[in-house]
Amino acid sequence: MTEMTRRHLLGAAAATAVAPLAAAPAFATAPVAGKQVPTYYRSKLGDFEITVVSDGARPIPLPPRFVLNVPNEEVLKAAEAAYMPKGTVFAPFNPIVVNTGSKLVLIDTGYGPIAPTVGMLPQSLAAAGIDPKTIDIVLISHMHGDHINGIKNPDGSLAFPNAEIKVPAVDWTYWMDDGNMAKASEGFFKASFGFNRKIFGDMKDKVTRFDWGKEVAPGIISVETAGHTPGHTSFVIASGSSKLFFQGDVSNAPALFLTNPDWQIMFDSEPDKAIATRRRVYDMAAAEKMFIAGYHFPFPGLGWVEKAGTGYRLVPAPWNPVI
Amino acid sequence: MTEMTRRHLLGAAAATAVAPLAAAPAFATAPVAGKQVPTYYRSKLGDFEITVVSDGARPIPLPPRFVLNVPNEEVLKAAEAAYMPKGTVFAPFNPIVVNTGSKLVLIDTGYGPIAPTVGMLPQSLAAAGIDPKTIDIVLISHMHGDHINGIKNPDGSLAFPNAEIKVPAVDWTYWMDDGNMAKASEGFFKASFGFNRKIFGDMKDKVTRFDWGKEVAPGIISVETAGHTPGHTSFVIASGSSKLFFQGDVSNAPALFLTNPDWQIMFDSEPDKAIATRRRVYDMAAAEKMFIAGYHFPFPGLGWVEKAGTGYRLVPAPWNPVI
Repeated sequence: MTEMTRRHLLGAAAATAVAPLAAAPAFATAPVAGKQVPTYYRSKLGDFEITVVSDGARPIPLPPRFVLNVPNEEVLKAAEAAYMPKGTVFAPFNPIVVNTGSKLVLIDTGYGPIAPTVGMLPQSLAAAGIDPKTIDIVLISHMHGDHINGIKNPDGSLAFPNAEIKVPAVDWTYWMDDGNMAKASEGFFKASFGFNRKIFGDMKDKVTRFDWGKEVAPGIISVETAGHTPGHTSFVIASGSSKLFFQGDVSNAPALFLTNPDWQIMFDSEPDKAIATRRRVYDMAAAEKMFIAGYHFPFPGLGWVEKAGTGYRLVPAPWNPVI
Repeated sequence: MTEMTRRHLLGAAAATAVAPLAAAPAFATAPVAGKQVPTYYRSKLGDFEITVVSDGARPIPLPPRFVLNVPNEEVLKAAEAAYMPKGTVFAPFNPIVVNTGSKLVLIDTGYGPIAPTVGMLPQSLAAAGIDPKTIDIVLISHMHGDHINGIKNPDGSLAFPNAEIKVPAVDWTYWMDDGNMAKASEGFFKASFGFNRKIFGDMKDKVTRFDWGKEVAPGIISVETAGHTPGHTSFVIASGSSKLFFQGDVSNAPALFLTNPDWQIMFDSEPDKAIATRRRVYDMAAAEKMFIAGYHFPFPGLGWVEKAGTGYRLVPAPWNPVI
């Protein structure tokens, strides 16, 4: 029986059942909406306005060695204990727009339409009323596909045609080196080199490389948090006494990698360094109650990190229905 | 200096500064949006569609005895440790709409416009494309103002004119009793009796009273969770093998009352019974990994409750940008 037939029959049965009740109101069967609310979220940060603009999310089927130093059964168990869809890790992608009053800055650009439920940045920006042509600066935390692919539209044109594109100098040197590409292992790392060539191959003279500890946009400082990639960078966004620490990929899914900060995710270029960076960042975050934006934290990805057990835990900021 | 003048000057200064850089893009200063995304969230539950439709949120300044059996300093400390605005508890209000395919059911109706940041249910429904005239059934978990006031518009007309209004029979008997009102303490409890008269005074013959353990709408069963009010009711919403437990006010802010389930919030009619109910519900929720909707949990208020320390903790469901 088709869904429509089933519904029709159920509808007819319901109509028969209520017919004798003269006092019953005029029941209206509303169609299922089937459409999520636009996925952006606004927050004030001093005089700045932050808009988290989702690029979507997807359950990643766990590959055989998702965490290098832990048996996959343990990872599967932890993911399931964290209520993730069985056999997967749920990965959101959260670029953010910072309106500093003088500049409109986009941090990271999403994966592009590689799957039906990602590459949603253009529609999130549109829903938030942000015209891509008004983005002044694009900052890249590190040169992985899910952070850089959105720099170009599927037709190869620039998604943010008026923006200065700024990338970490150390990552540029690493990822644009053909010798490094030749040595890269198959799969994720080879693919990452490919994404970089696709996006940056014809714009080598148009990309600004930045160092750590610099003001890369008004009120935004680049901070060394290397390990996940050689040039992985976080950003401290500050206005007045308010600060937000955009952590990029210091850790991935918090239920797995804050709880177990010593787990080596397969995407880390330098796993030991990534672990040391993670502990350094989160020890500081916990001590200073830093407000953090996590690119792979559950949308909108804003919150605080606390020590818990031998690791850490995320305390998500409560959703504020007004700004 | 006005904000406009300041911006104008800063804009001029910026223009001067970048003028020599011929290669610099045409910087656009986008206005601050200042407007939050519409606050609703959709989720599938078997064949049902759930839409959490926010009535808003507000920081409640802590009264001298917010928790009856704990010194206020301890409560203030816990609230601050949970990153709440100093001296306040942040309270969201999360009514939900269940589309069962045959009926459109609203559970709880919000506070009405008693403050600028609450009474937002009508605009959340509008944003979600839900016409109040299409609501078939309104279910009330308990007869406190922040759950019933939205039944009427500020002009006294019915907000859901075609809906059958269904309230817990035990709460009706308690709150509509003039003797109980005469005995009520000043403040919150007296005010609650007042709200009930304002909303229900002229519709005594139009309200359906339901008992516990009944199917009060298709696929929705009323469950006794008394203590917060004498007739406080939760709802199990079930479609196929999927279930959602709408807990109403079994607990308020999770950072305070899941962590400390024995704290007696000043709004509980029967504090000891409320504690026993809370532990009974959450012990079961933890054991069965029940999916829970919390009216005062951070929006959208969906997640799971786990045992933690001597109490519990909320694991919020990750936001899904697609449905």
